[in-house]
Amino acid sequence: MISIAEARQHVLDHCRCLPSSPVALTEALDRVLAVDVVADRDIPAMTKALMDGFAVRVEAMDRFPEQLQVLGQVAAGQLPSHDVGVGQAVRIMTGAMMPRGANAVVPVEQTSGVGWADESMVRVTIEATSVQAGQHTMKQAAIAARGEVLVEAKTRLRPAAIAVLAEVGCAQPRVFARPRVAVIPTGDEVVAVDQSPPPGKLRNSNGPMLLTQARQAGGEAAELGIGPDERESLRAIISRGLQRDVLLLSGGVSAGALDLVPEVLSELGVAPIFHQVNIRPGKPLWFGVRETGDQRTLVFGLPGNPVSSFVCFDRFVRPALRALSGETTTSDCPEQLELLNSAPSQVGGRDAFWPANRIVPDDGVPVVEILDWRGSADLCTLSRANGLAFFPAGEPLREPGDRVEFYSML
Amino acid sequence: MISIAEARQHVLDHCRCLPSSPVALTEALDRVLAVDVVADRDIPAMTKALMDGFAVRVEAMDRFPEQLQVLGQVAAGQLPSHDVGVGQAVRIMTGAMMPRGANAVVPVEQTSGVGWADESMVRVTIEATSVQAGQHTMKQAAIAARGEVLVEAKTRLRPAAIAVLAEVGCAQPRVFARPRVAVIPTGDEVVAVDQSPPPGKLRNSNGPMLLTQARQAGGEAAELGIGPDERESLRAIISRGLQRDVLLLSGGVSAGALDLVPEVLSELGVAPIFHQVNIRPGKPLWFGVRETGDQRTLVFGLPGNPVSSFVCFDRFVRPALRALSGETTTSDCPEQLELLNSAPSQVGGRDAFWPANRIVPDDGVPVVEILDWRGSADLCTLSRANGLAFFPAGEPLREPGDRVEFYSML
Repeated sequence: MISIAEARQHVLDHCRCLPSSPVALTEALDRVLAVDVVADRDIPAMTKALMDGFAVRVEAMDRFPEQLQVLGQVAAGQLPSHDVGVGQAVRIMTGAMMPRGANAVVPVEQTSGVGWADESMVRVTIEATSVQAGQHTMKQAAIAARGEVLVEAKTRLRPAAIAVLAEVGCAQPRVFARPRVAVIPTGDEVVAVDQSPPPGKLRNSNGPMLLTQARQAGGEAAELGIGPDERESLRAIISRGLQRDVLLLSGGVSAGALDLVPEVLSELGVAPIFHQVNIRPGKPLWFGVRETGDQRTLVFGLPGNPVSSFVCFDRFVRPALRALSGETTTSDCPEQLELLNSAPSQVGGRDAFWPANRIVPDDGVPVVEILDWRGSADLCTLSRANGLAFFPAGEPLREPGDRVEFYSML
Repeated sequence: MISIAEARQHVLDHCRCLPSSPVALTEALDRVLAVDVVADRDIPAMTKALMDGFAVRVEAMDRFPEQLQVLGQVAAGQLPSHDVGVGQAVRIMTGAMMPRGANAVVPVEQTSGVGWADESMVRVTIEATSVQAGQHTMKQAAIAARGEVLVEAKTRLRPAAIAVLAEVGCAQPRVFARPRVAVIPTGDEVVAVDQSPPPGKLRNSNGPMLLTQARQAGGEAAELGIGPDERESLRAIISRGLQRDVLLLSGGVSAGALDLVPEVLSELGVAPIFHQVNIRPGKPLWFGVRETGDQRTLVFGLPGNPVSSFVCFDRFVRPALRALSGETTTSDCPEQLELLNSAPSQVGGRDAFWPANRIVPDDGVPVVEILDWRGSADLCTLSRANGLAFFPAGEPLREPGDRVEFYSML
């Protein structure tokens, strides 16, 4: 049985990022950029005003209040029509290009004279007690110079990065494809969500769960139906799943006589990489890869118990989806947070994850509350958790105030 | 000028949650549930096995190893065909219903005899040294009893909650509508992203930014085009925006002569609620509401500088979208984290937000790095931040090791 770290490394070793293509900028949210994006011009492209006021030439301004001749005005988007010399000023709006000769802006609040809206104003009185060269202006290229890399390849695009792309005219950024994910829950005991399960059977909760986990992780996911405990039909549905980049099966990988999944996968040319990981819940996890020509499918045989399946997705499938979609930072650093209550006594022999809540109290220092979880069938408690606490095998029990590793879930 | 808290309260006072309707469960990710979801049966519905092995009756098992008569087998989804008495056992699979009379499962690893797959097996030897009543079983209703509320109304649905809904047959959960958001950047200095801006003009970065911020916050957002600095055309485009639940304008709310937005909004029946907030960046923020019959539109006049617009969205618009979509927890608790470097000296007169990175070092205790940000036009630095640090007005400068309020951004 391999460790969590070994299993994760095996998975990542088989991930190579998918091809890239251009998308409309407004559809690029949460996609991963495939190329560096550079500034197509200086930012700002010209020295500009940061406030509404008067563009002036600081040199020879030493007596205050000082009266200046107003030559005209310039708004954002306009070209200045006058140069500014000693004793002169141009009315200027926030974001407008500084006129030649001007090197500072005096905010309108520090001036008096004719009202702002009066086109006939010809003189303004500067009420400030001093004016510094460069004040309330931003120099050309102060933020970035033309040619500078602004957003690096392999960045997942959030709204601020999308705004940067817009600023430099990148209307169709090239992004990596989203991994196509197939979800197949298996087992004759599983009935559809809209059915009433007869005694002994239960509804398909793993399908919708894995589907939405895959979408949350950036995958383009589809549920192909429930795989039966019958070899030929199971083989048919699994064959369809193997057309995608990632196939998620749940159930059928324990040691029981009806656990057909590994056999059928082997018949279909999926090479097993590992089976069983030292993780609780999630020990039966199976992982394999099928290569055919230029297509590679990663196959995860997840345990049938829903929380086991959830945890295996979170720890192994999500990093794979992120790597396939081009992201480089697939390692997640857990936080070390103080426990609010005692660790569960059930943890012990295996490295264990436990549903928990990260709480930010009034003092702003986050703590972890371990939830009263009833084991790998208990989805209800999991649904109230915002993360997983981690208890390494063989370590002494933790008490309130001890630190614990915590992995956030969104 | 009002405070950040007052402005936020004004905004939330005008939010009432939108109507609800059913959606397909697999489309319910990140939607907000409008009704409590209850267990339609006990979970589990019957006492069941948690491991593959043998269902036995503990009473009178006191000599080990003990040989038992095997009556048959039961898999998950099947009904047991035998009751179990003293000296008897039934082969059982994980998740299967316990036969009547049996009250414990002996894992297959603790037994010997005929191989697991052998249908003719009639006797099994229990190699364990003790068997506890109830072991490796889960009692009927151990997780939840029929009628119990499992997921409360106003919960945003994550994958684990979706799995709970699936488990109880909620195939079409009732969820609140997503707020319809219109985005209109304004100003003649703004050109489309795919154009090359002439001197003095710049590309529309606020539009794609606000659009994707609104989508990230759960809104159904559309950009209606760039609003010109000409009253009639501006009025026409703003009229269209007022058909939606939320209208986001950017630019045109400063004090300059060309700032037409508040006037046009007033003409169109939008009642102003506040203008200017003690926040940096973002002071010019304008907020108003239009009520017509049963339609209410919240109107945000965001500053034209992109980072000001971004911060105002994050602090005021996002909570509004969450409240409209039915979520109750619209307050976000900042963390108090240690500063890695010195606070910027520029903060002072107003409550200030500053782009920053929350970093989790190897010791697992997160710290905050203040970024070298060039002000409200500097999107590049913002795009490298994963949150905002907060510096209240008038407080002494912070040094490395001091704590600072940090607001995470995704």
